Amino acid sequence: MQALVKTTAGPGLTLAEWADPTPGPHDAVVKVAATSLCGTDVHIYQWDEWAQRRVQPPRIIGHELCGHVVEVGRDVSLVKVGDYVAAESHLTCGACFQCRTGQAHVCKHYKILGIDRDGSYAQYVALPESVLWRTDPAIPPELACAQEPLGNAVDAALIEDLTGQTVLITGCGPTGLFAAAVARTAGAATIIASDISDYRLGLAKQVGVDRVLNAKVDSPEQIAAKILDSTAGEGVDAALEMSGNPAALHQVFQAVKNGGRVTLFGIPTGAVPFDLPNEIIFKGIRVYGITGRRLFSTWYRLAGLFKAGLDIRPIITHSLPMKEFAVGFDLIQSGRCGKVVLIP
Amino acid sequence: MQALVKTTAGPGLTLAEWADPTPGPHDAVVKVAATSLCGTDVHIYQWDEWAQRRVQPPRIIGHELCGHVVEVGRDVSLVKVGDYVAAESHLTCGACFQCRTGQAHVCKHYKILGIDRDGSYAQYVALPESVLWRTDPAIPPELACAQEPLGNAVDAALIEDLTGQTVLITGCGPTGLFAAAVARTAGAATIIASDISDYRLGLAKQVGVDRVLNAKVDSPEQIAAKILDSTAGEGVDAALEMSGNPAALHQVFQAVKNGGRVTLFGIPTGAVPFDLPNEIIFKGIRVYGITGRRLFSTWYRLAGLFKAGLDIRPIITHSLPMKEFAVGFDLIQSGRCGKVVLIP
Amino acid sequence: MQALVKTTAGPGLTLAEWADPTPGPHDAVVKVAATSLCGTDVHIYQWDEWAQRRVQPPRIIGHELCGHVVEVGRDVSLVKVGDYVAAESHLTCGACFQCRTGQAHVCKHYKILGIDRDGSYAQYVALPESVLWRTDPAIPPELACAQEPLGNAVDAALIEDLTGQTVLITGCGPTGLFAAAVARTAGAATIIASDISDYRLGLAKQVGVDRVLNAKVDSPEQIAAKILDSTAGEGVDAALEMSGNPAALHQVFQAVKNGGRVTLFGIPTGAVPFDLPNEIIFKGIRVYGITGRRLFSTWYRLAGLFKAGLDIRPIITHSLPMKEFAVGFDLIQSGRCGKVVLIP
Amino acid sequence: MQALVKTTAGPGLTLAEWADPTPGPHDAVVKVAATSLCGTDVHIYQWDEWAQRRVQPPRIIGHELCGHVVEVGRDVSLVKVGDYVAAESHLTCGACFQCRTGQAHVCKHYKILGIDRDGSYAQYVALPESVLWRTDPAIPPELACAQEPLGNAVDAALIEDLTGQTVLITGCGPTGLFAAAVARTAGAATIIASDISDYRLGLAKQVGVDRVLNAKVDSPEQIAAKILDSTAGEGVDAALEMSGNPAALHQVFQAVKNGGRVTLFGIPTGAVPFDLPNEIIFKGIRVYGITGRRLFSTWYRLAGLFKAGLDIRPIITHSLPMKEFAVGFDLIQSGRCGKVVLIP
Repeated sequence: MQALVKTTAGPGLTLAEWADPTPGPHDAVVKVAATSLCGTDVHIYQWDEWAQRRVQPPRIIGHELCGHVVEVGRDVSLVKVGDYVAAESHLTCGACFQCRTGQAHVCKHYKILGIDRDGSYAQYVALPESVLWRTDPAIPPELACAQEPLGNAVDAALIEDLTGQTVLITGCGPTGLFAAAVARTAGAATIIASDISDYRLGLAKQVGVDRVLNAKVDSPEQIAAKILDSTAGEGVDAALEMSGNPAALHQVFQAVKNGGRVTLFGIPTGAVPFDLPNEIIFKGIRVYGITGRRLFSTWYRLAGLFKAGLDIRPIITHSLPMKEFAVGFDLIQSGRCGKVVLIP
Repeated sequence: MQALVKTTAGPGLTLAEWADPTPGPHDAVVKVAATSLCGTDVHIYQWDEWAQRRVQPPRIIGHELCGHVVEVGRDVSLVKVGDYVAAESHLTCGACFQCRTGQAHVCKHYKILGIDRDGSYAQYVALPESVLWRTDPAIPPELACAQEPLGNAVDAALIEDLTGQTVLITGCGPTGLFAAAVARTAGAATIIASDISDYRLGLAKQVGVDRVLNAKVDSPEQIAAKILDSTAGEGVDAALEMSGNPAALHQVFQAVKNGGRVTLFGIPTGAVPFDLPNEIIFKGIRVYGITGRRLFSTWYRLAGLFKAGLDIRPIITHSLPMKEFAVGFDLIQSGRCGKVVLIP
Repeated sequence: MQALVKTTAGPGLTLAEWADPTPGPHDAVVKVAATSLCGTDVHIYQWDEWAQRRVQPPRIIGHELCGHVVEVGRDVSLVKVGDYVAAESHLTCGACFQCRTGQAHVCKHYKILGIDRDGSYAQYVALPESVLWRTDPAIPPELACAQEPLGNAVDAALIEDLTGQTVLITGCGPTGLFAAAVARTAGAATIIASDISDYRLGLAKQVGVDRVLNAKVDSPEQIAAKILDSTAGEGVDAALEMSGNPAALHQVFQAVKNGGRVTLFGIPTGAVPFDLPNEIIFKGIRVYGITGRRLFSTWYRLAGLFKAGLDIRPIITHSLPMKEFAVGFDLIQSGRCGKVVLIP
Repeated sequence: MQALVKTTAGPGLTLAEWADPTPGPHDAVVKVAATSLCGTDVHIYQWDEWAQRRVQPPRIIGHELCGHVVEVGRDVSLVKVGDYVAAESHLTCGACFQCRTGQAHVCKHYKILGIDRDGSYAQYVALPESVLWRTDPAIPPELACAQEPLGNAVDAALIEDLTGQTVLITGCGPTGLFAAAVARTAGAATIIASDISDYRLGLAKQVGVDRVLNAKVDSPEQIAAKILDSTAGEGVDAALEMSGNPAALHQVFQAVKNGGRVTLFGIPTGAVPFDLPNEIIFKGIRVYGITGRRLFSTWYRLAGLFKAGLDIRPIITHSLPMKEFAVGFDLIQSGRCGKVVLIP
């Protein structure tokens, strides 16, 4: 088969002929219909310090996918040949405290598809049946493959009920945009979003954000004033940090009202100093660290959101043949895209 | 002023000239712009056994209203003349355990507007400032006066998060219809509603219900089968009983999936026998009794829902001059209406 | 091995020589150290209508146990020979909505040990490794085997936080007594318990109940008055129905304060009529159906409760050699016992 | 009357003859039976930068008190002369979003007793009836006056249920010790506490802490290792930061298990840098800022905890006549005390 492989310890990826995967007794082989690019993949592509420490070539990367089951191992019972599936990318241990108490999304020993095991930038991928998620065939592959990062957005947005609430989202990369679309579907009262790219703020408008703020144009003080203006002087009920940017991190704590909640999802590089008394303690707020997706309540909820009318089409801005992967990685680094999809 | 008064202990109401209300130090006088009819008012109108026990004539009835503040008492600080307001109809004691722990909606000593104190079927009504709710002037009086029963629907629907969930609503009277509209705005995945009136099921369709079931046409078994059919065989995540009908009461417990939740709002007449093991215990469900509105979180949430696009216009089917009140009461008893509004 | 077997479709049990169990690839064989009697076993023993419908002889019954692993199947990784274990008695499917969303305790397809599969009234029992619970060896077998029903009590008591709250427990059978002991350990403010047996109310006193009420001695009105007296006129924050008795069922709804919560665990025979408006709706309460144990959060919590000082020793009133099983069943039917344990 | 007054803008306090307070219409005058020292008072005593900015002399300081009502204003209905009361020290506005939605503990406009209004270091203090808390006369004044800071500890400890859970408390000042006592009463499985004072760790032992760690003796690595050792390698379910010390702040985030929760109560001076991905995000934890006390659910819960056996006597280490206030402030600064009480 054809696959995008990190063949050696260095930058780039190679489109290579590679052996078809063989399923173990509990595995299914999926013919990949679409697979999308994630920021993690950019790190591996660029071969930064984190990637050098974490990835051992040769490795087929990629962990956001959908496709059809074409072969099943001996003991498989949850899926069958022909099923249209997406996949949870975290392979959990099943034995730790977290896994045994309904919190497998923070399993202590989880492995990641496309890092610890060959991934989805390929024509075929073998996966444990337990991570496969049967998907409504009415959802086209370009959208279905993005359910994995969309699940992050679901948890970031809906860790507490958003219906009738005011929301700030800092960062309009794909996951921030997904969170905005989810908040819109969930009946948020007012959605405010910030970014430094007018292109991405334009996408935010398309998924229903009420007010967009460009942090390159407005000062932090101006942004704070506009947030108060959009919330009758109250601040927001919920603030979702989706950028990892230190200025944005302080903005969410400033913008959230006393007794409100903050979601932390964006990954800053390096330590960020906080004024705990004024940013957290005296405000009496709740702060949630969000990682992964709840297995499988987030996936079920996602299916429900699609039925409720969740529309992520404006966010899937590019779909490319797999061989044009370099164009995709360039797009992500330019910031002039939402989610970029590869078709193997 | 003109007012609709229960002048003597017997059926009917009298449109009478009545003394204008005088505000106490913490009261405001509201010029009523619109006031809507509630099932409770029908009981008083008909002078049934409950009403005979509970209401002492002479009494101006009515408790769903909006209007403008025209006069304020000496110590009033929360509202001012000219404010456009609706009103919470439960006057709570402020001193009991429930009031002092954020649960004033189940205050042990609350009084009800239009029953324990002169109400809103009048040109003017005096109300404690603490129950007034400043309302967005963009919401027309016919909708704004209905916020009180709409608040019941908000709590019935949103006592747990509905986003992405499947919902059954039994009973499409005004509050059931309000609950359907709220569930739609909240991003419910699938909304199923039942009633015995095609007229009301038609209104349900208009507010976004996905599937309507006529309990006069279908047997309980057929309804159960259709609910399973609409939920991929799972049953619903949330079942809201808004009718008080015994058959519907059993339907919600049958339809809810294991681990789901039931809201009880409709008031049955007389005791209803339950098969607790199979209807509640072995299903491991949560059951919520819903009454009143949370003070004032439900009202804030309602304001947020309007911003999120909540549209209750199809449910406000009739608006009549106050003198045509008899037409309004006839309409309610006919079942061929949603909410009926009187204009004083 | 020796085992207590329902050999034919009729009353009684036979102490028989029976083939040792053979473990499947994911099973472990446990040498039973202690196994306790449950009300369900009494139904099977007496061969009542429910048992006739549900149990297919020959069947070794019993589902509350502890012991040591003496053999493991080929694929077992969670336990090893020598481990001291108890067992979850519900064998869940792992594939349904409930199982995949952390609610396996209400799995749609679960099987029960000792009913659908040979159970623990035997010297050895084979069990899937996934249901085994490694237990602190400091907990003696007579207590460790009772963790299964104790888990029911943990969920009944702690479905919401009890610390600092007033509690009513109706029914002082073993699970009601366990719930009382759990509530005491959890820092309940005041625990009131009712039963019709002075013997069992004496046990209730021993596990720390503050006030016991004999429903044979006091009328429902007197009991209601005493509950108000013990709660400064407020009613209880939490009412746990552990008896299945209709009078007790109404007592919990009367005793719970507005905004409080009710747990339903006891199984009534036949339908029970409720006055929904006054018992549930106008009180604005939450009602929880409790069944099974949360897998495995309840078990982890139970381990924590033992560390916190939970003492159930007064409740384990009898320990008998397995051959004296008839004495045990007689004891349960007499009501003059707490939990009865058999030693194989 | 005699009172401790900050008479001029500078260090120290003056024991002065001062005019008796006169109650407004909604006020009651309390004859102070006991009043305890808080860290805030130390700041005012020392007249540090914060105090210079915040306090306007002349001012009677002090905000932790109990005593008897000796006079009531015209409109008072919640208390009467002779009542034994403690007091909530936050005087909330009653009109903001937070106050109107059951979150008055984070009122946007609250005033503080002893800072914005004359306080409790006096023979008499006038207080709004709404902040008075009728207290069981069986609780002696030295304990009853400490209910205010004890309420902080209740919220810090019980913002989520602690029953059966492992807990770390960093900082054994009075509020940390109160939290430990509350956790013990709530049925925590294992309580670990750290401080740099053996004296205070000794007090921690007395209120039931299982393992004490001296951060002056052990390195952060050693402390981390000992916490793992006490929690079977899991880390703690709940970590309460009660010191404001930066090293302790990192310890709570390191010690908490994936999916666990952190309470922030201690006030650091200056910004503290955090490694958000590893300390919060990837752990999928919940972080709660704790301030004030929930009005009045925390106070009710506290009453319930006393009934459940909460024993804070070991923490009230010193009781002094008010004129010896300087001894009390010296004690606090020495760290060789728990709570210090003054008797006016």
